[in-house]
Amino acid sequence: MARVVSRRSPASASNFDLDGFLKTRAQVVDKALDRFLPPVTARPPTIHKAMRYSIFAGGKRIRPAMVFAAAEACGGRTEDAIPAACAVECIHTYSLIHDDLPAMDNDDFRRGKPTNHKVFGEGIAILAGDALLTSAFEIVAQVPHRTRYPVASAVRDLADASGSLQLIAGQVADLEGEGKSLTVAQLRYIHERKTSALLRCSVRLGGMSANCTSAQFEALSQFGYFVGLAFQVIDDILDVTQTSETLGKTAGKDVQAQKATYPSIVGLEKSRRIAAQLTRKAYESLRPFRGRAVALESLAKYLLGRDR
Amino acid sequence: MARVVSRRSPASASNFDLDGFLKTRAQVVDKALDRFLPPVTARPPTIHKAMRYSIFAGGKRIRPAMVFAAAEACGGRTEDAIPAACAVECIHTYSLIHDDLPAMDNDDFRRGKPTNHKVFGEGIAILAGDALLTSAFEIVAQVPHRTRYPVASAVRDLADASGSLQLIAGQVADLEGEGKSLTVAQLRYIHERKTSALLRCSVRLGGMSANCTSAQFEALSQFGYFVGLAFQVIDDILDVTQTSETLGKTAGKDVQAQKATYPSIVGLEKSRRIAAQLTRKAYESLRPFRGRAVALESLAKYLLGRDR
Repeated sequence: MARVVSRRSPASASNFDLDGFLKTRAQVVDKALDRFLPPVTARPPTIHKAMRYSIFAGGKRIRPAMVFAAAEACGGRTEDAIPAACAVECIHTYSLIHDDLPAMDNDDFRRGKPTNHKVFGEGIAILAGDALLTSAFEIVAQVPHRTRYPVASAVRDLADASGSLQLIAGQVADLEGEGKSLTVAQLRYIHERKTSALLRCSVRLGGMSANCTSAQFEALSQFGYFVGLAFQVIDDILDVTQTSETLGKTAGKDVQAQKATYPSIVGLEKSRRIAAQLTRKAYESLRPFRGRAVALESLAKYLLGRDR
Repeated sequence: MARVVSRRSPASASNFDLDGFLKTRAQVVDKALDRFLPPVTARPPTIHKAMRYSIFAGGKRIRPAMVFAAAEACGGRTEDAIPAACAVECIHTYSLIHDDLPAMDNDDFRRGKPTNHKVFGEGIAILAGDALLTSAFEIVAQVPHRTRYPVASAVRDLADASGSLQLIAGQVADLEGEGKSLTVAQLRYIHERKTSALLRCSVRLGGMSANCTSAQFEALSQFGYFVGLAFQVIDDILDVTQTSETLGKTAGKDVQAQKATYPSIVGLEKSRRIAAQLTRKAYESLRPFRGRAVALESLAKYLLGRDR
């Protein structure tokens, strides 16, 4: 199966042990999430079981990895980036639980496992999402204070990325766009919000934890934005070119749900060109780091060069 | 109709213009909420219409009034308490939207108007709740920094009160208790979380905005706790003794839903004695303020002496 976008990327990233990076950082974030979130024995157990069912459902911890990689690119320490890494993962997981609900995308499976509401019922699934959203802010309030970025900056950046003008706006536009023919601009609006907003916030929070300069902050913001858009276009392409087994989720789902996608609007070839262009812009955003953003480059290579 | 609890309260509160206080503070909070939340014209309009439909649905702004009254009791300024007042109202409104959903309490009316999901559909109602919950944290991050209470304290206090061990725990226990016979201890557990947690947080945040002493903080916490419990017992009593018209919501709803209430567990007379005892404890909590907590006393009198 041909890759959507070539894996070619700056040479500095080619020798980076991304598997090791992802594995160790996932362990760090899993351990911290286990500490931050109430145990399953905490009363009432149902809600804590439901929260933990989804947060420990085997996600790849891409957003936490982005937080850690951005912190490293700015000379920061992994330890200082832990609260931000856990907070973005809580937001991501809550958004999946709510998006999967019957009133939204009505999905029965996620990462090969029954969705939260299929296991715990709709009421508890809604509350588990609410609880993870709330936990995200309890956790992000524990980021270290930085001279350029007081705690309030991190809280507000996360709230902005997750709020009604970004992440939630994307889901609303997605819901409202079902069965309608969208323009490329409308589809891009959805992708910017559903995917780019939280990825951008992840790298920004990572940078903040390292007390990054404003130039670094700007570069990270650009990077997160373009990686998110490129990722989403590639996701659209994979939905029509791959099987369910390879994807680990229902393939052709977008077509079935009559959701507009890049291939359905501009065709497969043009979609591939757009993906390649966005990918290039993502790499270019990292230039100011002059080779010190190796982990971020490798992550981009992994996300955008994936063929599954 | 006899009042549930006598309106007798410390003399200092008897001349206080509570109507004026509630009216002016509601205006302050409404104006600020209008400024904090995106306008209905912000894209996508649906979500902002849905958020504003519920937040401006004519609530009495009791929790914001508690924030302002607590700030005053500690010598603080109304202006400094505005972000906290708006944040607790966003949390309260989000919790009502989600509690009213078909998967939860399945309510068609709230404050005499169709509930959010009846107007906007379930998907948008879930997202409008999510968006208000997120806004609460964006707003609370704007509280003024205080030497005793940095911004992170306010964010964490709000997250704790709203999270899976408090507000959400109450809703879960409430859902799970339906149709079952509960003990008084189990019912109290639900009331502590569904009602006391956010009222206590409201007065604590008000105190924090005024850089209150730890003794004041403790007194406010006690007050919020007991006012919440007393209010809820009285609410249970009113549900069986009043008509729907007087209540402004469906009377006898608890009985219909087979929800355990104080009257159903311990009878009406004992419920009244418990309400009176909790009310007395609420007033006693304010002793350390030595008459300077007039607005809080009047609010308690209004909430606990109400007959409608």
